[in-house]
Amino acid sequence: MTVATGAELVARVRAGEELACARLMSLAERGDTRFGALHDGFFRDLGRARRFGITGPPGAGKSTLVEALALHWRRAGRTLGIVAVDPTSPFTGGALLGDRVRMGRLALDKGVFIRSMATRGVFGGLARATDDVADVLDLFGRDTLLVETVGVGQSEVDIARSADLTVVVLHPGGGDTIQAMKAGLMEVADLYLVNKADLPGLDRLVQQLQDILGLRDLPPDRHPPILTSCATDGLGVAELAAALDCLHAERAASGALAARRAENFERRVRRLVEGRLRHDVWEAEGLGALLAERISQGLPQPAHGLSDEILTLYRKRTPES
Amino acid sequence: MTVATGAELVARVRAGEELACARLMSLAERGDTRFGALHDGFFRDLGRARRFGITGPPGAGKSTLVEALALHWRRAGRTLGIVAVDPTSPFTGGALLGDRVRMGRLALDKGVFIRSMATRGVFGGLARATDDVADVLDLFGRDTLLVETVGVGQSEVDIARSADLTVVVLHPGGGDTIQAMKAGLMEVADLYLVNKADLPGLDRLVQQLQDILGLRDLPPDRHPPILTSCATDGLGVAELAAALDCLHAERAASGALAARRAENFERRVRRLVEGRLRHDVWEAEGLGALLAERISQGLPQPAHGLSDEILTLYRKRTPES
Repeated sequence: MTVATGAELVARVRAGEELACARLMSLAERGDTRFGALHDGFFRDLGRARRFGITGPPGAGKSTLVEALALHWRRAGRTLGIVAVDPTSPFTGGALLGDRVRMGRLALDKGVFIRSMATRGVFGGLARATDDVADVLDLFGRDTLLVETVGVGQSEVDIARSADLTVVVLHPGGGDTIQAMKAGLMEVADLYLVNKADLPGLDRLVQQLQDILGLRDLPPDRHPPILTSCATDGLGVAELAAALDCLHAERAASGALAARRAENFERRVRRLVEGRLRHDVWEAEGLGALLAERISQGLPQPAHGLSDEILTLYRKRTPES
Repeated sequence: MTVATGAELVARVRAGEELACARLMSLAERGDTRFGALHDGFFRDLGRARRFGITGPPGAGKSTLVEALALHWRRAGRTLGIVAVDPTSPFTGGALLGDRVRMGRLALDKGVFIRSMATRGVFGGLARATDDVADVLDLFGRDTLLVETVGVGQSEVDIARSADLTVVVLHPGGGDTIQAMKAGLMEVADLYLVNKADLPGLDRLVQQLQDILGLRDLPPDRHPPILTSCATDGLGVAELAAALDCLHAERAASGALAARRAENFERRVRRLVEGRLRHDVWEAEGLGALLAERISQGLPQPAHGLSDEILTLYRKRTPES
């Protein structure tokens, strides 16, 4: 792909061509250096889409909820971009057909573009790739983006925070809050949704949430709202959609949204820089292998001396690559 | 301090001089580059001490437990080094008198050296500093090291993992497992200690722990043991001490200890290198300020372009400093 065809690809994404959109996403996912250059050409046109992060433990019903939300907003004439991030999945991105099958009721709707992402083959981490892929959907003209992540670890929490608003989905029974807390999800929620509200244990889960919120230093009126739903029946979905739009509008008006986006942007740039530095030192320069090899020769070894040596090698080999 | 006096300082630490020990620790805490050079001169003599990490939520009684453990091992003729890490404390290290007052019963015992550490003024993070300070105590000849950290976040969890064995201390009542899970402490425990076992709720907490352990993929016989204690009365302390020594000996014999130390060492070197890189790029080179200043000019901005620019500036300014 030459620069000309790169610019052409971007133009075709802007024009709403699905295949171009998928190809540009693939560049982003692979961490192709050309993506960065292309992105620098279109970032000014981003930020129009509302971005909602949907996360929670496995089994909370996130996919069903995302599908129901998308259907709801489609009926209101909105266009959707969905990024489904599953780091445990063996499938890499681009499986367009598979994605469509996964959310059956959206399969034939051109107003919903779904992209699945998994860890494998993603350079620089899922958080970097997810930001870039979501930006492609924004460029593609989608007005509403849903980024669904399985809330299982620090990097997924980071992804969930990178949206304008983050919904943490839980369901009654099954040690749900336990898993959410282990993943650090409780801190990043702008809104809790207790899905599968027809299951026994609803009151107990809501009580647990309130207890945990009570441990924080927030005044009660600043606590994230707790909503309930039963997404398989569509119950509570309209309320969630309304609450999200309302919170988004409030924050846009108060300036909180701009502040959140600035925070997200700073984290993103830091992540890009640190990811490149880590990649350069440990992988591109092979110094991770050097470290492992040294350790395999047995301890004790000089921690400081070895780190100095690695830094010196890194700086020598990387004058301005 | 010249290199000659640096070597002299190390010699005085080896000879058991308390003030020299405290001074060498201060160099370590400040991230003084001379410490690294000195450390490279004595690392071969480290690793003789058994290192136990003690962590858990605030209020679990960790300090009292550490004091009781130290007293127990002192009676058996062992020598103790205690590093008390409290990132929420406004006090910096070196407050020797304060440390001694804190653990009253150990105040006059020369066989116990206590060092308190707080975040403020520690270059490169508490985890780096704690490793270095613990090494000084090892050099000082202490045969048993206790590293106490408040388990409140990722960096504290990292510190807790850097020992040979990690004890997670909880107490009944008060949403203890909730806080421990939020901090990610459950994953790093080699042994759970339910302290304040006289409080109501003991059975419930032990049951919760077993439930959480049941969510893991470990066979039940590989689950970390759960012990109970009432450290203020000294109950359960001898059993904990015995369990720790026994686990340590088992792992030393099986090779698991060497593997753990190799893992810790690898994490430590990576932390040193990445810490230096992060420090160099964001602070020494002032590129964190540049990023903040750019963001203050308002969004949108090019995330990729800005990260490239920062990396280029970094590489230009840092040929081999």
